[in-house]
Amino acid sequence: MKSEIIAVGSELLTPYRQDTNSLYLTEKLNEIGVTVAFKTVTGDRRKDLVNAIRTALGRVDILILIGGLGPTEDDLTREAVAEALSLTLRRDATQVAALHARAAAWRITMPPNNLKQADVLEGATLLPNPNGSAPGQWLDVTFADYRKLVMLIPGPPHECRPLFDAECITRLREIVPARVIAKRTLKAAMIPESQADKLLAPIHTTYPDVETTILAHAGDIQLNLICVKSSQEAAEQRVDELASRVEEALEDWLYSSQGESLEQIVLYYLGLRQATLAVAESCTGGLIAQRITSVPGASRSFLGGAIVYSDALKAAFAGVPADLIAQHGAVSAEVAKSLAQGIRLRTGATLGLGVTGVAGPTGGSEAKPVGRVYIAVSDAQKNEALERTFRGDRTRIREWASQQALDLVRKRLM
Amino acid sequence: MKSEIIAVGSELLTPYRQDTNSLYLTEKLNEIGVTVAFKTVTGDRRKDLVNAIRTALGRVDILILIGGLGPTEDDLTREAVAEALSLTLRRDATQVAALHARAAAWRITMPPNNLKQADVLEGATLLPNPNGSAPGQWLDVTFADYRKLVMLIPGPPHECRPLFDAECITRLREIVPARVIAKRTLKAAMIPESQADKLLAPIHTTYPDVETTILAHAGDIQLNLICVKSSQEAAEQRVDELASRVEEALEDWLYSSQGESLEQIVLYYLGLRQATLAVAESCTGGLIAQRITSVPGASRSFLGGAIVYSDALKAAFAGVPADLIAQHGAVSAEVAKSLAQGIRLRTGATLGLGVTGVAGPTGGSEAKPVGRVYIAVSDAQKNEALERTFRGDRTRIREWASQQALDLVRKRLM
Repeated sequence: MKSEIIAVGSELLTPYRQDTNSLYLTEKLNEIGVTVAFKTVTGDRRKDLVNAIRTALGRVDILILIGGLGPTEDDLTREAVAEALSLTLRRDATQVAALHARAAAWRITMPPNNLKQADVLEGATLLPNPNGSAPGQWLDVTFADYRKLVMLIPGPPHECRPLFDAECITRLREIVPARVIAKRTLKAAMIPESQADKLLAPIHTTYPDVETTILAHAGDIQLNLICVKSSQEAAEQRVDELASRVEEALEDWLYSSQGESLEQIVLYYLGLRQATLAVAESCTGGLIAQRITSVPGASRSFLGGAIVYSDALKAAFAGVPADLIAQHGAVSAEVAKSLAQGIRLRTGATLGLGVTGVAGPTGGSEAKPVGRVYIAVSDAQKNEALERTFRGDRTRIREWASQQALDLVRKRLM
Repeated sequence: MKSEIIAVGSELLTPYRQDTNSLYLTEKLNEIGVTVAFKTVTGDRRKDLVNAIRTALGRVDILILIGGLGPTEDDLTREAVAEALSLTLRRDATQVAALHARAAAWRITMPPNNLKQADVLEGATLLPNPNGSAPGQWLDVTFADYRKLVMLIPGPPHECRPLFDAECITRLREIVPARVIAKRTLKAAMIPESQADKLLAPIHTTYPDVETTILAHAGDIQLNLICVKSSQEAAEQRVDELASRVEEALEDWLYSSQGESLEQIVLYYLGLRQATLAVAESCTGGLIAQRITSVPGASRSFLGGAIVYSDALKAAFAGVPADLIAQHGAVSAEVAKSLAQGIRLRTGATLGLGVTGVAGPTGGSEAKPVGRVYIAVSDAQKNEALERTFRGDRTRIREWASQQALDLVRKRLM
C-alpha cells in the first residue's frame, strides 16, 4: 500500500527548520510493508492545506498528517480535513472536560481558543496522546470510490512518535496485508568510495529483492539492507546471504555487522583485550575523545587524555621534547609518535593515540598543506605513525582525521 | 510570487536520507521576495513525478525541480516535465559533443545511456553546470492560461547550489517585482524557555511586518528576524528597531547580535582581554574543547586542556588531590573548582574551566542524579562553581553542560 506524509507548519517552509518526524514514520511504515510515495510540506494557510490533502487522497491509500493540531488559530489541520472530505466537526464533551482537567492540574487558566483541540471529525476514532493536550484522530473513509485511511498526528516529536507507534502502527497492521521485514546494517571505515562501488555494486545488484541503501560520510560507509517477504525466515535468509557476501568483499574495512558505531567497536575491542586508551589531540581538539565518551560506559576503557593545542602543552601533558618540535615541526610523524607514546606513559594506558595536523583554513605550507594529518598509535610493542592528507573544510578535515584515528586504534586491537 | 520545490529521488523517501538543498534554495528565494508554499518529495517513478509536477503547476507560479537529471534510467525528470507539459525532448548536438569531450578528458568510455543528459525540453534555456555533466534547464511556459516558470536543477548539492545562485536567482530577479530584504540573527544562552516566551512574544508580535523565527536547542535560543520592503532603508530600520528591543529584553542572556556562535563569542572576548583558556573536562569528555577548536584561529586564545575521565587523570593533569575526591566525590563543586584551578595553573592559562558530572544513563544516585553537573571557572581573582541538573539523555545532558560551561566563561569575561 502507498502512503503520503504531509508535514504541516509554516516554520517547516523556512530555511531554518526541517521536518524530521517523517524519517521516523517512514521507518515504521516500511517495516510493515507500507511504502512512502510522497512527502509534502505545507504551511498554515487553510487553502494550501486543503489542496495538499485532496492531492494526496487522489494518489495514495494512506495519508498521514503531522502537526497543526494545537490550540492556536494557525492550527488548522482538523478544519482542513473536514473541508477536504466534506465532514462535520463536533466538539467532544469528554475532550472538553479533559482539557479543563489538564489546565487545572497545571494550575493555568485555559484560553477559550484551547477548546478547539476537542473538535472531532465526523466518524473519527480519537487516538490518545499521553504526552500532550491534542489527541490524534483516525479516519477510515471513502474518497472518490476508494477506501482511504487518514491519520491526524500531533507535531512535537515526543508526542508524534509514541502516538504513531502505539495507535497507528497497531491499527495499520490489522489492515495492511501481513508482510515481515528483515534488516541489517553493515559499516566500513576509510574505504575509498570508488573502491566501495567497485566491490559492492556487483554483489548487491544480484539481490534485487533486498533493498540496499549505501550512505557515505567522512570515511564512513553504511549499508542498510532491507528485505520484505511473506515469511520471516525467507526474508532473513536473503539478508544474511547478502550480508555475508558484503562482509567478505569489504575485508577488514568492515568494522560492524550489526550497526554499531566505530567508537562503540573500539570500546568493545578495548574491553575484550582488557586494554585502556588515552589520547593526545592537537588538530582534532577533543573531537576523538568526545566521540568515544558519547558512548555510555566509555569510562571502563577510556582514561581520558590531553588537548595539546599549544607546543607548551604538548610538552607539559605528553612530554614532547621542544627540540623534536623545533626539528620536525609540530605537524610531523615524529611529533604524532611522541604524543602517542607520551600520553600512554603519562596515563598508564595500554594504548596511546596521538594526532597532529593542519585543520585549516590557514596554517598550511607547501610541504604541509591544509588537510595534512599525522596519526600515531603507541603500545608496549610498537609506535607507528600514518600520514594522510584530507580534503574539505576545517570541519570535514577534523571529521576525517577522527575517523582515521579511531580506525587505526581498531586495527591495532584486532 | 509563490513557489514549490520538488526534490526527486527514491533515496529521499527512505528513513536515511533527507533533502537539504531546499533549505538553501528557500533562503535564496525568500531574499528576493519569493515564498515557498509547498515542498514535495517524490521517488523515481515516472507516473508519480508527472503527478507531482501537474499538482505543483496547478497551485504555484514558480516550480523548482531538484534531481533526476543524471544518466541512469532512474533519472526521469526531463521526461516527466515533457509529459506533464506536453513538450517534446530533442537531443542537443552541442551537449552531446560536450559530454564526449568530458568523457575524453576524464579518460572514460561513455555508456550510450549518458547521452540522455543532452536531451533538452522544447523552448528551454540550458543552464550551464560547471560542476557536473548534466546542465540545468529553464522554462517560461503557459499552463492552464497562467504563466509558469519551471527550473530543472541537478541534485548533488555542490552542483545544485552554485547553479541555482548563478543562473536561477539572477533570472528570477528580473521577473519578480523588486523587493529588498533585511535580516538579523540574535542569540541567547541558558534563558529558560518559558522566560524567553514571556519576554519576547509581546515584543515581536508588535512587528507583524518582521518575520520572527525562534529556534531553541539545548540552552541556546536563536531569533531570526526578516523584513521584506520595497526600500532597503525601510526594511533595515524595522529590523534594527525590533532587534534593539529584543536585545534590551534579553539583557545579558543575549550573547550575539550578528549570529555568531557562543564559542566564537568566547574566543572574541578572550582575544579582547588578551586572555587564554584551558579546560579540564570530565563528563563532557572533550565536547567543550571540540566546540572551541571548531572555530578557525582558536589556537590564538585556547591552549588546550585535559580530558580527565578517570580519578587518576584528575590528579595527574589537574592536580586534584585524591582526598578531595574521597571526601566529596568526583562529581562535586569542590572537584570542579579543583579541576578549574589545577588546569589553569598547569597550563599557565588566564582562565581555567572545570566540568564534572553524571552524564548517564547509569552512575546516578539519590544525592547526585543523572544530569547533575558542576562547572567552575577559575582566574587569578576567584574560583566559583555552579551546580545544575539537566534533563534528557546522555547526548542532551552533555550538550547542555557544554553550553552552560561556555556561557559561564563568557560571563566571567564580560
